[in-house]
Amino acid sequence: MKIALAQLDYHVGNFEKNTSKIIHAISEAKKDGVDIIAFAELAICGYPAWDFLEFDDFINRCEASIREIAVHCIGIAAIIGGPSRNPVPEGKNLYNTAFFLNNGNVEKLIHKTLLPTYDVFDEYRYFEPNTAFACVDYKGKKIAVTICEDLWNLDDDPMYTINPMDYLIKEKPDFAINIAASPFSYTHDASRVNVLSRNAAKYNIPFFYVNHTGAQTELIFDGASMVAHPDGTIIKLPVFEEKISIFNLDEICTGKYPEYTAPQKYALITSALVEGIRDYFHKMGFKKAVLGLSGGIDSAVVFALAVKALGKENVLPVLLPSPYTSDASNLEAIEMAKRLGTDHKIISIASITSSYESVLKPLFEGFEPGLAEENLQARSRGTLLMALSNKLGYILINTSNKSEIAVGYSTLYGDSIGAFSVLGDLYKTEVYELANYINATENNPIPEFIITRPPSAELRPGQKDSDSLPPYKILDEILFEYIENRKGPKEIIAQGHEEETVQRILKLVNASEYKRFQAPPILRVSEKAFGVGRRLPIVAKYLS
Amino acid sequence: MKIALAQLDYHVGNFEKNTSKIIHAISEAKKDGVDIIAFAELAICGYPAWDFLEFDDFINRCEASIREIAVHCIGIAAIIGGPSRNPVPEGKNLYNTAFFLNNGNVEKLIHKTLLPTYDVFDEYRYFEPNTAFACVDYKGKKIAVTICEDLWNLDDDPMYTINPMDYLIKEKPDFAINIAASPFSYTHDASRVNVLSRNAAKYNIPFFYVNHTGAQTELIFDGASMVAHPDGTIIKLPVFEEKISIFNLDEICTGKYPEYTAPQKYALITSALVEGIRDYFHKMGFKKAVLGLSGGIDSAVVFALAVKALGKENVLPVLLPSPYTSDASNLEAIEMAKRLGTDHKIISIASITSSYESVLKPLFEGFEPGLAEENLQARSRGTLLMALSNKLGYILINTSNKSEIAVGYSTLYGDSIGAFSVLGDLYKTEVYELANYINATENNPIPEFIITRPPSAELRPGQKDSDSLPPYKILDEILFEYIENRKGPKEIIAQGHEEETVQRILKLVNASEYKRFQAPPILRVSEKAFGVGRRLPIVAKYLS
Repeated sequence: MKIALAQLDYHVGNFEKNTSKIIHAISEAKKDGVDIIAFAELAICGYPAWDFLEFDDFINRCEASIREIAVHCIGIAAIIGGPSRNPVPEGKNLYNTAFFLNNGNVEKLIHKTLLPTYDVFDEYRYFEPNTAFACVDYKGKKIAVTICEDLWNLDDDPMYTINPMDYLIKEKPDFAINIAASPFSYTHDASRVNVLSRNAAKYNIPFFYVNHTGAQTELIFDGASMVAHPDGTIIKLPVFEEKISIFNLDEICTGKYPEYTAPQKYALITSALVEGIRDYFHKMGFKKAVLGLSGGIDSAVVFALAVKALGKENVLPVLLPSPYTSDASNLEAIEMAKRLGTDHKIISIASITSSYESVLKPLFEGFEPGLAEENLQARSRGTLLMALSNKLGYILINTSNKSEIAVGYSTLYGDSIGAFSVLGDLYKTEVYELANYINATENNPIPEFIITRPPSAELRPGQKDSDSLPPYKILDEILFEYIENRKGPKEIIAQGHEEETVQRILKLVNASEYKRFQAPPILRVSEKAFGVGRRLPIVAKYLS
Repeated sequence: MKIALAQLDYHVGNFEKNTSKIIHAISEAKKDGVDIIAFAELAICGYPAWDFLEFDDFINRCEASIREIAVHCIGIAAIIGGPSRNPVPEGKNLYNTAFFLNNGNVEKLIHKTLLPTYDVFDEYRYFEPNTAFACVDYKGKKIAVTICEDLWNLDDDPMYTINPMDYLIKEKPDFAINIAASPFSYTHDASRVNVLSRNAAKYNIPFFYVNHTGAQTELIFDGASMVAHPDGTIIKLPVFEEKISIFNLDEICTGKYPEYTAPQKYALITSALVEGIRDYFHKMGFKKAVLGLSGGIDSAVVFALAVKALGKENVLPVLLPSPYTSDASNLEAIEMAKRLGTDHKIISIASITSSYESVLKPLFEGFEPGLAEENLQARSRGTLLMALSNKLGYILINTSNKSEIAVGYSTLYGDSIGAFSVLGDLYKTEVYELANYINATENNPIPEFIITRPPSAELRPGQKDSDSLPPYKILDEILFEYIENRKGPKEIIAQGHEEETVQRILKLVNASEYKRFQAPPILRVSEKAFGVGRRLPIVAKYLS
């Protein structure tokens, strides 16, 4: 039996594109003699469709796509993810379903049992959990079909009370197919390999696993579809690209496949961010990007990634110096534009901040200059960048990092703006490592001085980040424990961090919730990114 | 048996304040001879605590509060909502629990069965649903205790497959207590009365219902706790205020209570918005507000509500005229500040927009003036208001309405900014009705001309909203069908709206998702507000 895994990039709500892509894949697979082809979870409508699933019209379009695709499933079967209506009134109105298409029809529906509702996942918001289990019979084989999370309930502290495979295995299936929508994080591929291997070993059958590629705003899908054999063999599809791979069921364990090794962290992150940038522009129908280039590390890394994603002719870096901007910042920024071969613009903000200060003078009488004046610089820059975006149709890319977003060291409506954030899920120390990785693999686009200089916002003379924050190594360790690991102050102090520093940092994080609420979407590369996957109430007083 | 309902305003994560408030209420009730006192769902930590529930430290603090409160429950019992740990590894780690406190101890835990996971609710994100049912035995009475949603599964298309009361009623309880966290919308109190009455009639016992008051950022709780008797009698606690009411179980149906009538829509909305403004400032520890006053209807209504909530000495309206601002706008805005007795400031933005245009001139060469220049005006205003906020410590209140937020007729980082939005859940036609209600009940703070003039953003000469949008009556009808009722284009056109208009409006709504992602939190007054209760993917292409 020939089994194809179709690892494709869908576009949420773009039924025409998704449907024709799926039909094309089925036709090609049929030519290659494939018996059954599997597409990802909710491939019909794209993932995540979120509240579009509440629209009857949206579900109608999903159903129309399924019918259109089914017609092409003659002489080949397909398994495709999509929403289906719950036929009984009790419970949620939809199931998250794998449609088994054969003989030109929908022959069977397999519903998802375990509905991830944590981090970026909201599936119980829309779907009723499945409670009935049966394998698919096809050409003399029994196939155990499950959907993503259905295989993930293996831990010592499992999130769900049942395991769908425990029911399906009773029918003695020949193999299993899992269709998934499993977004990238830099640790997630290793987790997936682990979960698939453990399932294959536990149930002693081969598992075929197919995932999405491409980015949907903040969620990036790396593909990394695979076959896991009970003997431990893992056969992987490539990451971050569309790919249809065909496997012969009788030949998947011949030992001819190379052993799987997980790629290096910053190689994965670079690919993910490039895909995230490229697919945002592609899916929104945009071509050109603009960003503020300060001579600091963050904007330098974003600039390099944007050029890699969009091409040097499509990225416009803009220098926005103030009187506090050092000559070195300007020179290094220009040098970087030269190295990458892009155009660049320079707009001094001095006359603009002066205009603001002049009209505000009567109202600011008696106050010392301070934060308000610093924020005026950041907001003047933001307004200029948005003016260029509005006039030229270039899309503004944000350059903030996760450390500063965490503690609120950014100006709301100033440097915190943009269509989306590239580095918002990377701590400052990770941004440095990423810069080094990019320089090592991309012919040194980032001038060394930008990497080695002490970080500064340059909003007043001689300002340095270290004036008001602990060293980034310490800050980032504390932030990681609080944000990724959800440790409280006692636990973080017990790890050896200074009590006063920990209390101050956690208070800063919680008190900055109002800024993050209005932040752009952040390309997610960690297990816990700011944004839709982390929900906290603004007026709360916990640790603040 | 004397039963007290404690309708209180908790503060999320503020354990010290919540605990002492609860203990105080228990002590007072004990003095009044109360046998059992009921507090709202998750009162211990406040609602919604969202992802703070993922922190072990946060749950420890909840447990410590419960222990502290239990000590005071001698000679009186209490039912209090809080999270509790799931003792078995399988399933989510927490339950949403009603703690029955008596004899100085936690004597029983009753877990929530039906976990709302839709709109602003995310409960399955944190909690395992209950599957075991038993009444509480206390002083010879059997009490059916349930938590909020547990009573709401009555419709023809019920969201859940079971009804907890169907199990509890088998024990023949004497009465029922439901502890709730049920946020305000202008239709919700009528729904609550309906649900409680139907439960009382169906199960033929009295239902005691206790809810939160106060606002937690965007969610406003109106209280409106009540007793529903099987004969149809409804006894209501007041709305939008803290109140502890004591009922004698034997006397709750003597017919001496006035018949319940739902308050008028704009009376409710006014109270809700005032509470929302006041409690945001109160819980964040702020006192003074600043807002841009344009001479248009939206900022006028926000101004009037802010003064009602915070006092005239705490609200600073700022006029930010450009050369396109009509004299009438300035004069009417000043007149309104005079009527309300506040200070006001005037800052002309002309010199600032000139500065921007002058530095941008070389880059804008060959382009006609247009949207970029209009947005510069809005962003200059935003930057000035934020400068005042930063310098004076006044909190900026946003003045956008739901219609313009829906179709994206606002400038990101311009007029869309602020700590929170007061009118963002009211369509333009509703803002007019609210203005008339305020004038009728508050001695005409809003000059008549502001209400009767044709709406305009005044960003270019002679501009009117009707140049680019259908009349607000039509626009708002289409938006309501799409946003509140989740109708698709076919269904809205079938209701009699022009096809081209419907297609254009729905496309505008979907294409503006990126702006709403970065909008401030919006005080929720309808059943479907923009913000946490409406989640849509930005890059999606559905209807756009």
